[in-house]
Amino acid sequence: AELEKHIAGCRGVSFPVAVVLPAGGSGERTGLSTPKQFCTFLNRPLISYTIQTFERVPWIQSIVVVVAKESFGLMMDIINRFHHTKVLVVPGGSTRHRSIFNGVRALSQREDGTVLVKPKVVIIHDAVRPFVEEDFLLKIAVAAEEQGAAGATRPLVSTVIASTSDGYLDHSLERTKYKASEMPQGFLYDLIYEAYQSCSELDFEFGTECLHLVLRYCGTSAKLIEGPPTLWKVTYKRDLAAAESIVKETLSQSACVVTGGSVRAAELAGELQKNMGVLGMEVEVISDLVADNVKSLSSKWNFILVSVNIHSLSEVEKTLTVLEDVDRALLHPVVIIWVHLESPEDDSSVSEGTSGKRAAMMDLALGAKLRNALVYGIQIHHSKEAQLWERSVEKLVQILSALIRDRNPALTGQLLQA
Amino acid sequence: AELEKHIAGCRGVSFPVAVVLPAGGSGERTGLSTPKQFCTFLNRPLISYTIQTFERVPWIQSIVVVVAKESFGLMMDIINRFHHTKVLVVPGGSTRHRSIFNGVRALSQREDGTVLVKPKVVIIHDAVRPFVEEDFLLKIAVAAEEQGAAGATRPLVSTVIASTSDGYLDHSLERTKYKASEMPQGFLYDLIYEAYQSCSELDFEFGTECLHLVLRYCGTSAKLIEGPPTLWKVTYKRDLAAAESIVKETLSQSACVVTGGSVRAAELAGELQKNMGVLGMEVEVISDLVADNVKSLSSKWNFILVSVNIHSLSEVEKTLTVLEDVDRALLHPVVIIWVHLESPEDDSSVSEGTSGKRAAMMDLALGAKLRNALVYGIQIHHSKEAQLWERSVEKLVQILSALIRDRNPALTGQLLQA
Ligand SMILES: [Mg+2]
Ligand SMILES: [Mg+2]
Repeated sequence: AELEKHIAGCRGVSFPVAVVLPAGGSGERTGLSTPKQFCTFLNRPLISYTIQTFERVPWIQSIVVVVAKESFGLMMDIINRFHHTKVLVVPGGSTRHRSIFNGVRALSQREDGTVLVKPKVVIIHDAVRPFVEEDFLLKIAVAAEEQGAAGATRPLVSTVIASTSDGYLDHSLERTKYKASEMPQGFLYDLIYEAYQSCSELDFEFGTECLHLVLRYCGTSAKLIEGPPTLWKVTYKRDLAAAESIVKETLSQSACVVTGGSVRAAELAGELQKNMGVLGMEVEVISDLVADNVKSLSSKWNFILVSVNIHSLSEVEKTLTVLEDVDRALLHPVVIIWVHLESPEDDSSVSEGTSGKRAAMMDLALGAKLRNALVYGIQIHHSKEAQLWERSVEKLVQILSALIRDRNPALTGQLLQA
Repeated sequence: AELEKHIAGCRGVSFPVAVVLPAGGSGERTGLSTPKQFCTFLNRPLISYTIQTFERVPWIQSIVVVVAKESFGLMMDIINRFHHTKVLVVPGGSTRHRSIFNGVRALSQREDGTVLVKPKVVIIHDAVRPFVEEDFLLKIAVAAEEQGAAGATRPLVSTVIASTSDGYLDHSLERTKYKASEMPQGFLYDLIYEAYQSCSELDFEFGTECLHLVLRYCGTSAKLIEGPPTLWKVTYKRDLAAAESIVKETLSQSACVVTGGSVRAAELAGELQKNMGVLGMEVEVISDLVADNVKSLSSKWNFILVSVNIHSLSEVEKTLTVLEDVDRALLHPVVIIWVHLESPEDDSSVSEGTSGKRAAMMDLALGAKLRNALVYGIQIHHSKEAQLWERSVEKLVQILSALIRDRNPALTGQLLQA
């Protein structure tokens, strides 16, 4: 335990921290039949994104997910499928506070009798706020350890008003004096435990605010820390679209172009680097992905394989194998785009075997999709006329960007024309 | 004026209603350089969506858009480009209240001396809330006429808390007693005018809430009406993605399949109708779009043209002409998908002229895109093997749905394979 503390301390805090994620809510407000934490985008349920967010923070030792009994199996499937570690699943109670308390209790009592380091600080978060960042979690954890309790706030976006009993404006609050209380919140473990042990059935039934409980039952005023707008709660169907767009944008920030050592491919790669850079996409050019480019493999989500005059898809197959070896597509779909550059010298290339090439591409893509890799093809004809060639490259850049940004599974296996 | 009142009354209210849209805000919170009301999705700036929302309500007589001086030219371009009528653009003031008052004043004073029917009720809305519905506007207008003032509210999504001066929790408000004040708000014209004439420089400088002004200066308590979640304010970049997804979903609700009278095309159309129905897309099948299907033309945003064994793109060209005649693509991009069904009997179809066909398709699509029509092609081979055919149709349905939902301009002109 001492060693663990030491390691954790080097990277963030010097005390053990655990997380409780209540995920028992129903999907009423999204307008969807699935509870929103289990809604899926890019092949992964929302809650897995949230878990991942905490999992990658080295100083967080464990994550307790509290789910309704009927979702227990689903939750275990998600944990297995996406190889989540550090996660303990416990059954929820009939209200939010009962669920959170179940989660908090699980951190000091293990049914199977295994030993567990009781956390000093527990962070409570919502399963439907997937984008919380490590530095903000650190602020909350440190303030909680120092002050007993800490909570995220956001400025109010609307004026808050009080209404009369018959539905007329009574008064409006001065916006600057109030804040919206958000998640995450952090507590000394013993303090939040005590608050839950002391609080009334009424609190368990109707309460929503943990900060309120520690103030009322332990006399501890939480430190309030303004968080970034990304803390927002995925509530409606439109919020799922927003969350998906944020993840897609993150995945589209960079790409890796593989030239296979060909001079002509390297020239095209250089042009892609320049043109896609203008669109905000950082392009790294390498000659061989397999040889010694482990760094690209583990940092990029998009691979553009340029092949000159060669119809073979073997480079795509090789790339798929390498990516699978490092389990690259476990959390996000990886995009692989095969760019086939045809030269005018190579007369046969245009007409020959197009139909067979298409079929092979489609088969390959179908298999890859099952492994969460999205394979597309683009043909581009080299032209000695500068203007024509420029236009083709521009078109190629547009298509590449669109495929990478959209990650559309319905279009895999297609052979497009630049 | 009497006649106008009568006409308006038949469709909604029996008194003249105008709208003021303050649109002078800067883009700070979106994380974008463009002020958010001028951010564009699907080729159209957000504010045009909002204007359109009011424009289609028959009982709203005019819309005053208040913009910063530096955006005046841009705003006029938007009005011209999207053929907005009913709109008057006036310059904004240095604060939100000053801008709104400018808009309100413009409804009774015209610099050019033309006569204008002074509205009985004025609705104030935000340019960045594009999805308000007619029935809700009606509620606000009617309540404003009866009570003097009316405002939209939403339940609070977060607990509201008060903080001490040094940043600790002081107390939390009981969530059920308070609401968030949103837009639209409605006022008797003379009442809001009076409130603005009476209010102080301090109000003009720091105030945000019109409901507060009529309460304080006219003693009128506004009627509060809970609005739908779609009233939300586009604030961050992610909200633009959410707004775009809502518009895309609306545009994808139905499609029109044109068979050209071919029996085989009609069979395929029937299968599309069944399969796309399962995905929630209503498919109407007609034999000729041009002849007498004006209704389909003016109700659908997506056209699937099935051609059997014929390589000609003339049907696509004809469709583009007809759509242009009715200015169909003015407000939203129209999708036209050419589905080329090839039979095994027609041996020549697979190999012959693929490259020329592609070039023609690309050219056609390039021209169409300039007119806001997105043209795509899909080839599907007829198979007598039931299982193979079923799989092809399934693939066709996936691609059709994806193209219609995504409306991706970078992929127009491509000839895909089902
Ligand atoms: Mg407001
Ligand atoms: Mg909350």
